[in-house]
Amino acid sequence: MSHEALLLGIDAGGTTTRAVLTDAAGRCLGYGAGGRGNPISAGPDRAAEGVLDAVRAALASAGRALADVSVVVPAMAGMRAAGGSEWLRKRLAPHGFGGVLRFESDLLATYFSGAAADAGYALVSGTGACVIRVRDGRIDGTGDGLGWLLGDRGSGFWIGRAIARAAVQDLDGTGPRTALTDRVLAHYGLHRTGVRHDGRWQELELLVAALYEHPPIELAALAPYAFEEPDATAHEILITAGEQLADTLSAVLREPGPLVIGGGVLARPGPVREAFLARLGAAADALELRAVDDGAVGAAMLAIRAAGGVADDATLARLTRAVAAFR
Amino acid sequence: MSHEALLLGIDAGGTTTRAVLTDAAGRCLGYGAGGRGNPISAGPDRAAEGVLDAVRAALASAGRALADVSVVVPAMAGMRAAGGSEWLRKRLAPHGFGGVLRFESDLLATYFSGAAADAGYALVSGTGACVIRVRDGRIDGTGDGLGWLLGDRGSGFWIGRAIARAAVQDLDGTGPRTALTDRVLAHYGLHRTGVRHDGRWQELELLVAALYEHPPIELAALAPYAFEEPDATAHEILITAGEQLADTLSAVLREPGPLVIGGGVLARPGPVREAFLARLGAAADALELRAVDDGAVGAAMLAIRAAGGVADDATLARLTRAVAAFR
Repeated sequence: MSHEALLLGIDAGGTTTRAVLTDAAGRCLGYGAGGRGNPISAGPDRAAEGVLDAVRAALASAGRALADVSVVVPAMAGMRAAGGSEWLRKRLAPHGFGGVLRFESDLLATYFSGAAADAGYALVSGTGACVIRVRDGRIDGTGDGLGWLLGDRGSGFWIGRAIARAAVQDLDGTGPRTALTDRVLAHYGLHRTGVRHDGRWQELELLVAALYEHPPIELAALAPYAFEEPDATAHEILITAGEQLADTLSAVLREPGPLVIGGGVLARPGPVREAFLARLGAAADALELRAVDDGAVGAAMLAIRAAGGVADDATLARLTRAVAAFR
Repeated sequence: MSHEALLLGIDAGGTTTRAVLTDAAGRCLGYGAGGRGNPISAGPDRAAEGVLDAVRAALASAGRALADVSVVVPAMAGMRAAGGSEWLRKRLAPHGFGGVLRFESDLLATYFSGAAADAGYALVSGTGACVIRVRDGRIDGTGDGLGWLLGDRGSGFWIGRAIARAAVQDLDGTGPRTALTDRVLAHYGLHRTGVRHDGRWQELELLVAALYEHPPIELAALAPYAFEEPDATAHEILITAGEQLADTLSAVLREPGPLVIGGGVLARPGPVREAFLARLGAAADALELRAVDDGAVGAAMLAIRAAGGVADDATLARLTRAVAAFR
């Protein structure tokens, strides 16, 4: 491989896209960010724009051109369903790119953002929740990631929906009173009225109407309320979320290895993390937990691996420091 | 009140509308059925058509005209949200109707289909699930009825979603194996492939895609699979459904009284009914369970009450027999 050959790892997310430019030796040369980069949620035109913005910024920070890049690895969710890479290749080609374009899973990029080892686990709990088992550098097993209607147990959506349910059950008397109720009412611009129709508080009718007005996935926006001075109900929700994440991980757990944690739900110490570790019990001792912010570094690691370069612990440490410095 | 005055009770549902024509003494004179009658789900034009079809059929079976009718009581869900009665009055007026038009809750009509007493309970678990406490002939308390996203615990939707979740968790290994999985796959025209991508069965990816393609509420169509020779997983789902319905009832339970059961989930003896009664424990002894098919008789009872007539146990028994004979 020529010393000129450059590599691009791209972490293309639902809201932000990050591009990391390296050489084949794994030195970070540039970094850039763009908008929405997932063609499934944003559409191919807008997604390509997000990706190209990040790529241009990364190249500009190094004073290089896309024609110098031999390998591009975009990591994004659900790429099998999106059908092929042509939507992006045809938008990179006019800028002089004629190299290898290889899509990877966003979960695998999360994994390699926190680990260089060929085998281990990644658990992401953000809006959704999914766990993968990695073996030989590829995804060998997947748990959950089944979406808000069927799964995503222990995710931000799951917590948000549990909060909404706790609030409406508090108001209709089928559940206990909780401090979450006033926070949820305020979130939708509502307050207690003292008025009842057919044995039901008016604010409950208004809240239910408001909750059904929005796409279900937006319930994830309620999740932070459970973390703010949790009362018994909020605590119970967080504990259950942690236990569910542990159960999802347990379903794919085999040999010991690193466990890379992505997403906000498990990122910090607190009730979710405690319940997660307690539920795992002795199995937790065989795992080395490492929280990461996103999949940017891992996408670069995947690009280096795709180019036949060395993506070991030293590379990971160097890339992590360099990307942090660029931000 | 003139002996000529006729009364119409209408049970306007999401799929079928039923009209019962009586005189003020509570004698059933006619019965008719029509299509969808709820303006919220069907729109006002189509709903009025369903109501008018049922009304015309009821009047025709008695050889009478709408001009002879002094009171019309349509019972339907969510009428507060639909905003007023004008959408129906203006469509009845051209046929000569100038009397009292009084909307009632479909749940209250279910109650009076099974009880004449001023106080008691109705629990409906069909696609959704809701319970009411009746006092002085009006709704005095309501539990659940919060819709598929927030509640409807123990409903047909809830059971169907639990079945779908059990199937996808079986396929991704986060849940136990269950005979429900092959039934769910077959329901969506899928079968086991033996092919895995990223450690995930191909049929799981196809099933998840199929499940998200349809409106969530359609998961209720899976509910019957849990009742067919239930294995441990299906049995657990049915037990939990019964317990949830008991908990919802318990939240509004006060003094003893009749408990009128509507909807298919609790209609027949079986695991749901058994778990429901077991969870209620001693509280069940104070309730007199009566299952009803729908709210047609109750709508007629409400029309008789609205006209100041006698809607007692004898009236209920007579109407129940007469409507059954018309069907």
